[in-house]
Amino acid sequence: MTKRTFGVIGLAVMGENLALNVESRGFPIAVYNRTSAKTEEFMATRAQGKDIKAAYSLEEFVQVLERPRKILVMVKAGKPVDAVIGQLKPLLEAGDTIIDGGNSLYEDTERRTKDLEATGLGFVGMGVSGGEEGALNGPSLMPGGTKAAYDDLAPILVKIAAQVDDGPCVTYIGPGGAGHYVKMVHNGIEYGDMQLIAEAYDILKNIAGLDNSQLHEVFAQWNTTDELNSFLIEITADIFKYIDKETDRHLIDFILDAAGQKGTGRWTVQSALELGVAIPTIYAAVNARIMSSYKEQRVEAAKVLKGPSASFDVGDTQTFIDKVRDALYCSKICSYAQGMALLSKASEAYNYNLDLAEDARIWKGGCIIRARFLDKIKAAFNESPKLPNLLLAPEFKQKILDRQKAWREVLVAANSMGIAIPAFSSSLDYFDSYRREVLPQNLTQAQRDYFGAHTYERTDRARGEFFHTEWMEP
Amino acid sequence: MTKRTFGVIGLAVMGENLALNVESRGFPIAVYNRTSAKTEEFMATRAQGKDIKAAYSLEEFVQVLERPRKILVMVKAGKPVDAVIGQLKPLLEAGDTIIDGGNSLYEDTERRTKDLEATGLGFVGMGVSGGEEGALNGPSLMPGGTKAAYDDLAPILVKIAAQVDDGPCVTYIGPGGAGHYVKMVHNGIEYGDMQLIAEAYDILKNIAGLDNSQLHEVFAQWNTTDELNSFLIEITADIFKYIDKETDRHLIDFILDAAGQKGTGRWTVQSALELGVAIPTIYAAVNARIMSSYKEQRVEAAKVLKGPSASFDVGDTQTFIDKVRDALYCSKICSYAQGMALLSKASEAYNYNLDLAEDARIWKGGCIIRARFLDKIKAAFNESPKLPNLLLAPEFKQKILDRQKAWREVLVAANSMGIAIPAFSSSLDYFDSYRREVLPQNLTQAQRDYFGAHTYERTDRARGEFFHTEWMEP
Repeated sequence: MTKRTFGVIGLAVMGENLALNVESRGFPIAVYNRTSAKTEEFMATRAQGKDIKAAYSLEEFVQVLERPRKILVMVKAGKPVDAVIGQLKPLLEAGDTIIDGGNSLYEDTERRTKDLEATGLGFVGMGVSGGEEGALNGPSLMPGGTKAAYDDLAPILVKIAAQVDDGPCVTYIGPGGAGHYVKMVHNGIEYGDMQLIAEAYDILKNIAGLDNSQLHEVFAQWNTTDELNSFLIEITADIFKYIDKETDRHLIDFILDAAGQKGTGRWTVQSALELGVAIPTIYAAVNARIMSSYKEQRVEAAKVLKGPSASFDVGDTQTFIDKVRDALYCSKICSYAQGMALLSKASEAYNYNLDLAEDARIWKGGCIIRARFLDKIKAAFNESPKLPNLLLAPEFKQKILDRQKAWREVLVAANSMGIAIPAFSSSLDYFDSYRREVLPQNLTQAQRDYFGAHTYERTDRARGEFFHTEWMEP
Repeated sequence: MTKRTFGVIGLAVMGENLALNVESRGFPIAVYNRTSAKTEEFMATRAQGKDIKAAYSLEEFVQVLERPRKILVMVKAGKPVDAVIGQLKPLLEAGDTIIDGGNSLYEDTERRTKDLEATGLGFVGMGVSGGEEGALNGPSLMPGGTKAAYDDLAPILVKIAAQVDDGPCVTYIGPGGAGHYVKMVHNGIEYGDMQLIAEAYDILKNIAGLDNSQLHEVFAQWNTTDELNSFLIEITADIFKYIDKETDRHLIDFILDAAGQKGTGRWTVQSALELGVAIPTIYAAVNARIMSSYKEQRVEAAKVLKGPSASFDVGDTQTFIDKVRDALYCSKICSYAQGMALLSKASEAYNYNLDLAEDARIWKGGCIIRARFLDKIKAAFNESPKLPNLLLAPEFKQKILDRQKAWREVLVAANSMGIAIPAFSSSLDYFDSYRREVLPQNLTQAQRDYFGAHTYERTDRARGEFFHTEWMEP
């Protein structure tokens, strides 16, 4: 038998689907799973008739791979990744490459890249987005780490990635943990998108009074627009028309409103705090899931904490729907502005040397946040690679200015009706803070100097000169 | 010379002031500083004529202390604390106690407590709030760690702490890092209070058009109310009347609006994310400082991102001021509800066994967030120690319901005028989410199940039963 071009360790659904994807592009592959029953099952079902060799020990697995070896590890992030690396290391030779395709924390990837590069091995921490379906048919890939290893892998990666008008959705992201960092921020943006859509749903349902069929129509229509066309809007439209087989009613109404969260949303916020980057919309999205998880408390609180009795006249329904669409779009721009600003700062802080236009481009297909709108983000950073904030790009600036009135009106409606809109309002507060020459933190600085002698700068002096006042003097 | 009862290492201003405070209560003390010049200076100035012995080596310092030794370390948080502990350890004997009075990360304190307790030494991680003035005349103290060590220290701590109607502002917080955890959350709440005051200032100045003298009057008046009487409102009133000697104008107008942030606010948010606790107001406060630090970008953005042209009729000025007061109070309740919920969850997760009523009590004096209002928080948790959220306490519930209309109106005003109010609006969104039986995260769960097979629970089935749907089926 010929040697295998590519190996996959870990046959959970993502591993299986990536293996099948690689094989379908004409690369002979080998697979290995810790529990051999899983491997046997895969070989007897989905791998039937494919150019896939099963190995039942890591030694055997490594033997059948052509050199330099290319091994994709698809196991749970955290200790399992270190365990697999530890087992592989003594079996590999200089020039071989390990790829971690899980949602690893970028700091772990940073450490693993250093460790493995020091031994002459290559390590590629690769973000993979697109869910099961993307893994099988074309994901968005965000590989970072050893550059030479990436170059070896590129012929395979460009074939398995999603293909869009301007190429495959893969690029070398940067050294060390850059790939997983960009994937983490992608997920943070995904949290933001999902929460913004949830708030639009809440407003349309509970203020405009739309039923599920109407909601389906609205989201399907929004999906035809340049501004909102995206995978998440598309599946939202699908969801509103899905009929539960058990009850013969819309399934959406039987789903419990308590959302889980995995690590990446939280990590995005934690990293932003460490780097001093404002990402309030993404925080609001993560936090909204936390609030949703307080289900029992909310049921009790709803009995005693009654909202406003005011009613709100939405006026013409279609006009109101259009305003919600505009509010959603403005908020979405703010959320992406935050995510891109975070990437920009991380690139500087960690020497990732990111190409923000290219990072936006590879999100255009395959991944969960894929959207027509990303083409404009790519264009904005192509035109001005050092753009300090997406809100300053002519395209987005004008779009938001044209829509801010509608945006504000929707927030007033939600506020008056007692509908929580944390991501919409965090976005507006971001916009209103960012575009404000003078914020009230002069008072914050005065207070800090008053009680803690933290000192302050003056508006009539150069930056970097610090003053302290004995405020309690008569 | 008699042996010294208490020792202080580190003679920056907080160390000096705590040393003088302890000495003033009748305890003979010893001091040590790494740079002897600093010690000499202290001895020649502020320590003159006091019962203070200077030591110029750690060996000498340890020699002059009576056993069991009580040593307060006041050095920069992080590595310097470990360095001092490392130097002291071989010089101490079983039963001696090291107290870390800096703003250490609770996880570091957890580790140090374990390490030192294993060697028979006591370790007390102690939060100290009140700034320089508090340290000298009576701070709020939040000691945690070795219980027996606390008991040894108690006779001193109860004398140097601030004294309020129901006792000294000190209590044994809990084991391990509990003291520094509670101090961290205190600081997070402090961030929230300061940002809420900054937003009230912004609204009163830029919507109601108040000048500094009027602002002084408003805050001075608010400080007389049960709801808002507090140290931070008091110093805010002072700040608005302070005349800059250089310009003969109000100093507040010459202070740069770029606020710094130290670790504790950020740590509070990071810890809340790890524990799955919603603290959006505190995040908004930390984030507002980050936004304020983008000064140069904001100056540029202000030129191109113009806000709404709408004007807003505030109506009767005093009525509007009262509404801002109510909005501030409602937001403040939400912020404290978040902080206390975080303490409650941390207590459970880390086995701190916190007494929330007692923790609120020791904040009544000495510290930066001291306020009359804390008496009501103490009472709420005394009455119902397992209270899931402060918003459900009868006292606060009614106060917020009575004021929600005014609160919402103020937000509408700020929104229409383009004034960012991230902490006010995060508080309202917290309130409106918490009191909502059904939130729109059923859609979030449907989306996650659609693209990632994450599964969902159903409202017509018991919790803990998970379902998956093949949404793309015809």
